[in-house]
Amino acid sequence: MKRGFASDNNSGIHPEILNAISAANEGHAVGYGGDEITEKAIKRFKQEFGEQTDVYFVFNGTGANVLSLSTLTHSFNAVICADTAHIQTDECGAPEKLTGCKLLPVETFKGKITPAGIIKYLHGFDFEHHSQPKVISISQVTELGTVYSLEEIKAITALAHEYGLLVHMDGARLANAAVALDLPFSAFTVDAGVDVLSFGGTKNGMMMGEAVLFFNPELTKLTKYIRKQSMQLYSKMRFVSAQFLAYFENDLWKRNATHSNRMAQLLEQEVKKIPAIQLTQEVDANGVFAIVPPEIIPQLQEKYFFYMWDEHRSEVRWMTSFDTEEEDIIQFAALIKSLMPG
Amino acid sequence: MKRGFASDNNSGIHPEILNAISAANEGHAVGYGGDEITEKAIKRFKQEFGEQTDVYFVFNGTGANVLSLSTLTHSFNAVICADTAHIQTDECGAPEKLTGCKLLPVETFKGKITPAGIIKYLHGFDFEHHSQPKVISISQVTELGTVYSLEEIKAITALAHEYGLLVHMDGARLANAAVALDLPFSAFTVDAGVDVLSFGGTKNGMMMGEAVLFFNPELTKLTKYIRKQSMQLYSKMRFVSAQFLAYFENDLWKRNATHSNRMAQLLEQEVKKIPAIQLTQEVDANGVFAIVPPEIIPQLQEKYFFYMWDEHRSEVRWMTSFDTEEEDIIQFAALIKSLMPG
Amino acid sequence: MKRGFASDNNSGIHPEILNAISAANEGHAVGYGGDEITEKAIKRFKQEFGEQTDVYFVFNGTGANVLSLSTLTHSFNAVICADTAHIQTDECGAPEKLTGCKLLPVETFKGKITPAGIIKYLHGFDFEHHSQPKVISISQVTELGTVYSLEEIKAITALAHEYGLLVHMDGARLANAAVALDLPFSAFTVDAGVDVLSFGGTKNGMMMGEAVLFFNPELTKLTKYIRKQSMQLYSKMRFVSAQFLAYFENDLWKRNATHSNRMAQLLEQEVKKIPAIQLTQEVDANGVFAIVPPEIIPQLQEKYFFYMWDEHRSEVRWMTSFDTEEEDIIQFAALIKSLMPG
Amino acid sequence: MKRGFASDNNSGIHPEILNAISAANEGHAVGYGGDEITEKAIKRFKQEFGEQTDVYFVFNGTGANVLSLSTLTHSFNAVICADTAHIQTDECGAPEKLTGCKLLPVETFKGKITPAGIIKYLHGFDFEHHSQPKVISISQVTELGTVYSLEEIKAITALAHEYGLLVHMDGARLANAAVALDLPFSAFTVDAGVDVLSFGGTKNGMMMGEAVLFFNPELTKLTKYIRKQSMQLYSKMRFVSAQFLAYFENDLWKRNATHSNRMAQLLEQEVKKIPAIQLTQEVDANGVFAIVPPEIIPQLQEKYFFYMWDEHRSEVRWMTSFDTEEEDIIQFAALIKSLMPG
Repeated sequence: MKRGFASDNNSGIHPEILNAISAANEGHAVGYGGDEITEKAIKRFKQEFGEQTDVYFVFNGTGANVLSLSTLTHSFNAVICADTAHIQTDECGAPEKLTGCKLLPVETFKGKITPAGIIKYLHGFDFEHHSQPKVISISQVTELGTVYSLEEIKAITALAHEYGLLVHMDGARLANAAVALDLPFSAFTVDAGVDVLSFGGTKNGMMMGEAVLFFNPELTKLTKYIRKQSMQLYSKMRFVSAQFLAYFENDLWKRNATHSNRMAQLLEQEVKKIPAIQLTQEVDANGVFAIVPPEIIPQLQEKYFFYMWDEHRSEVRWMTSFDTEEEDIIQFAALIKSLMPG
Repeated sequence: MKRGFASDNNSGIHPEILNAISAANEGHAVGYGGDEITEKAIKRFKQEFGEQTDVYFVFNGTGANVLSLSTLTHSFNAVICADTAHIQTDECGAPEKLTGCKLLPVETFKGKITPAGIIKYLHGFDFEHHSQPKVISISQVTELGTVYSLEEIKAITALAHEYGLLVHMDGARLANAAVALDLPFSAFTVDAGVDVLSFGGTKNGMMMGEAVLFFNPELTKLTKYIRKQSMQLYSKMRFVSAQFLAYFENDLWKRNATHSNRMAQLLEQEVKKIPAIQLTQEVDANGVFAIVPPEIIPQLQEKYFFYMWDEHRSEVRWMTSFDTEEEDIIQFAALIKSLMPG
Repeated sequence: MKRGFASDNNSGIHPEILNAISAANEGHAVGYGGDEITEKAIKRFKQEFGEQTDVYFVFNGTGANVLSLSTLTHSFNAVICADTAHIQTDECGAPEKLTGCKLLPVETFKGKITPAGIIKYLHGFDFEHHSQPKVISISQVTELGTVYSLEEIKAITALAHEYGLLVHMDGARLANAAVALDLPFSAFTVDAGVDVLSFGGTKNGMMMGEAVLFFNPELTKLTKYIRKQSMQLYSKMRFVSAQFLAYFENDLWKRNATHSNRMAQLLEQEVKKIPAIQLTQEVDANGVFAIVPPEIIPQLQEKYFFYMWDEHRSEVRWMTSFDTEEEDIIQFAALIKSLMPG
Repeated sequence: MKRGFASDNNSGIHPEILNAISAANEGHAVGYGGDEITEKAIKRFKQEFGEQTDVYFVFNGTGANVLSLSTLTHSFNAVICADTAHIQTDECGAPEKLTGCKLLPVETFKGKITPAGIIKYLHGFDFEHHSQPKVISISQVTELGTVYSLEEIKAITALAHEYGLLVHMDGARLANAAVALDLPFSAFTVDAGVDVLSFGGTKNGMMMGEAVLFFNPELTKLTKYIRKQSMQLYSKMRFVSAQFLAYFENDLWKRNATHSNRMAQLLEQEVKKIPAIQLTQEVDANGVFAIVPPEIIPQLQEKYFFYMWDEHRSEVRWMTSFDTEEEDIIQFAALIKSLMPG
């Protein structure tokens, strides 16, 4: 299929990733993570995030988020998150089903939540009638393509820890954030007070696989059971581990994310030139949100599949990927322009 | 203990209810609802709400709400409710735990939700990533002591049915609402398009026991199993059924609710006379919400136990009961006045 | 209805219990267990079971069992129990639904499980593919009317603790067991190594209400939230607490259980005289199990409601209660005899 | 790592499968199964199992089993299965956690369950205290390496349907069974009355991915939501779909399974020659179960990783794979022989 802008998961597998899978396909390996490649991949994550990091590979992003939250909570807890968070709007209620917890949505500003929005939920502690707040979950990159600054993250983790809560970061697009911030992963996660991280790979060139990183090994006494019971324990785990090794090798993650971020900026520039299109979010990473005249959308989607973000205001979401090419952007922008009435 | 204003469930058992329990205590009765008193009580509810009504007795209000929601939903559904709803703020996450569903809170105006607030959640149908909206739940009386008008209810049930959703009403204080509206129960429930009703008794003179009424028997094929698995099936059920019969007998429910509503109005009048106190909600039923100078609250609570509603703005909630006496109100208001500085 | 032998929960409320409810019906009381009667009742349980006992009142036996198991387990644990246990056969899957755990049924001998039957499940520890055994649950009295001896209990608790498991006792008929063993409650529960006890009252003269007793306060850090989220927190709790106080007052529990056990023995004697009836279990407490000619059962049930225990072999269960009278037994036995063919 | 006999999932990816992944890695594809390769793969399954088949791809075997059971049950249902079933012993309680159901284990004979063992659980219908039996689940190949005959399957499906139950087949090793029976897949699944099938690929040469096949589309109205909420919806689904297409292409599944079954037979022959080793199960497919002198096991495991099946009787499980070579068997058997005492 033509490369489009529907989602960064419409892209395929980066060749270096595929090669790594192929290279790992030698002989037998102990299943369920007892193999040497997995051992190496875990070591690689510890290098990046610190020795105390506990690493669990899972199949997908929803699995990563749910494993994170399940590990941190009891069923009578509450999880505070953005009203646009993936766990709130895109996981079909998996967090509630698997954890039993209540999700408390906070209104967002530029896709982000703030201490001011969070604090209204920080009460009722010790009161058994009230779901006990336990986790604040933030997405980095946010679902609106924006990126929390280091200060914004620290303000949230400080508030959380002051109240005895823990912070989960949904890093489905963490590489794009790292590039946007020009910081190493650790700087805006573990070093900024994040307790648990869903570390995504699928959206940035991997075939599949996410990692859940716990920065305090006290938290993970039960995690291996939860992963298995949550159906996220992969038997031939070496084939996810090998992908992660390749992902870090020669900074593949950075090359891919740098490229897709740059492509989004190019798309932003191009559509900015079209007066009838109104950008609705800052383009911090690899997503472009725009209000588009509704009458051109069907024709546009015929050629390029993408999702409506908010039908009521005719807002669309366009995502770029590691494999988006400049030419794709140019042609897409040209098509938009050509469809414009008048 | 002195009669106070903490909650209508701090009151005791109305003598007519206790007599009914005593009268039911003759010989043996088939357990779990297979007895004659239960048969009569169910018949009585059908008289009130229509023959097609399916009636299930449970232990308590949370049990009633959860049985309602569990019957109406699958785990991937969403339940839309007020951000102040009992199911959202006072049941320690029982709805999420037992149903697996997501609760979607709507901002309230005078304690009520409106179609305008609900509609933002009515999208994503058929999209498997999205918790599917299935139920709108409203509380009548609301948690802020206000009462939905018939028109307000009908606007919500019409919207719900237009989108294929069902409407649950949490009627923990339904009697107080009926008195406030001066309508029979059926007029603002089944006849107004409500599909399922938690019908409360405990807060209005019963010892314990709530009923869940389903107005469409198509809905309840599985309900008996859900009630048992939800630990809400009472073995000696005749003793709840007898209470409900007494509750309807000679309009006990109405006498009690009329009285407690009147007591709230009296309290409203009395505290209105105290300039430093600001009433925050309309007194439609038996609850009075007020902002009170924080410095007098500890002394007041020493004599009369009651709950803070919103600590940040020093808002308190005072509830009256079937057994509140005029003298209680007068003394309480006098105490407040006497504690006022200057 | 005529007194029968269907279940000890078909009986009513003992007059002393009803009087206690009535006496507790004075003025207001803080809800949800914050009242003085509840404080006293908890103290009374501590007297009986030791100061370290943590006491939680709930509505019913299933609620008590589930609160016990929920407190002791994570969802990936397994609970070992009799294949006839109430939690296995009579709670419609409430334990699985609420805890997420696997129940592992052990074949019973005289209604009891033994270390030999349990031990086959004590493996797979630390192996994440395997539901981790965590609790052994036994019923005292068993579902077959037999009573574990002190030695039998200690053998099970010793095995459990050797493997790091905990022991739950379902004491829906604990009073009948205490009478049968002629031991104080504590001797065959806390002092015998039981960790958590469902202490029943409903089947022995109370109107409703069970207590969950945790003998190690380390276990109960989360129990209050679990009780609320499990819909087992009673608002007007004083009315359960008052019943428990009356239950202990002047050994009401013992008087009632002594009587019902004696009635079962009388029934045993009477039906032993009828050759066509074959007793299938030892009559340790207040249940009589017998194989009865199938052709007489319908006529018998017409007059006295009771349950089939095993239709395949025409086995019935007859339960006596605190209010069973000698005359009831005599008449019942006479009816059986009169229905016998030939 | 050296090829061993721990599990068929210790093997790697068959080259034809890896090629198919590589070939599918062209351009963009709509995520979550909306792509053309997935469409083709679903069509291919329909060819094999009939047009009415509804096909859902998931990540792993536990996911497939749980999606099957979740679709067929309500939380108050019971699932009858072998006491050795994967869902009973190897999924860490995922079925209970996700469905809420009770699993009822049946004793096995040669790894199989029979109508005689099942029927004892077929009672209590319509009785709300009793988890309602709804599904019988059988594994084909069984966990003990044996294969149900067509007649054995039909006896179970007939019994199930007579009582209104449905039949799930866990086909993690379905290809090995098809080869053993010398029948097409459809003959001993859909045509034999099976209602839902977990169709495995991972253990027979795929990198990952299982399919759940529902043979009655009436059953699957909710399945897409359940899959998503169960965290089993793969974003880049084309890469699983492509594997399945390759799996069917030129009968790869059959070539692989034929080979691994033959290798198991060779292993059986070789170890039969060693008197101290006692085979415990018939070698119908690709598993060999044997009692081995405990003193040689540590040395053997040093060279070849494999699992103990039953430590108490020193029983081991050896699995062959599509990539096992004759030489592996010969060397392994030789090593065993050499380790034998005396």
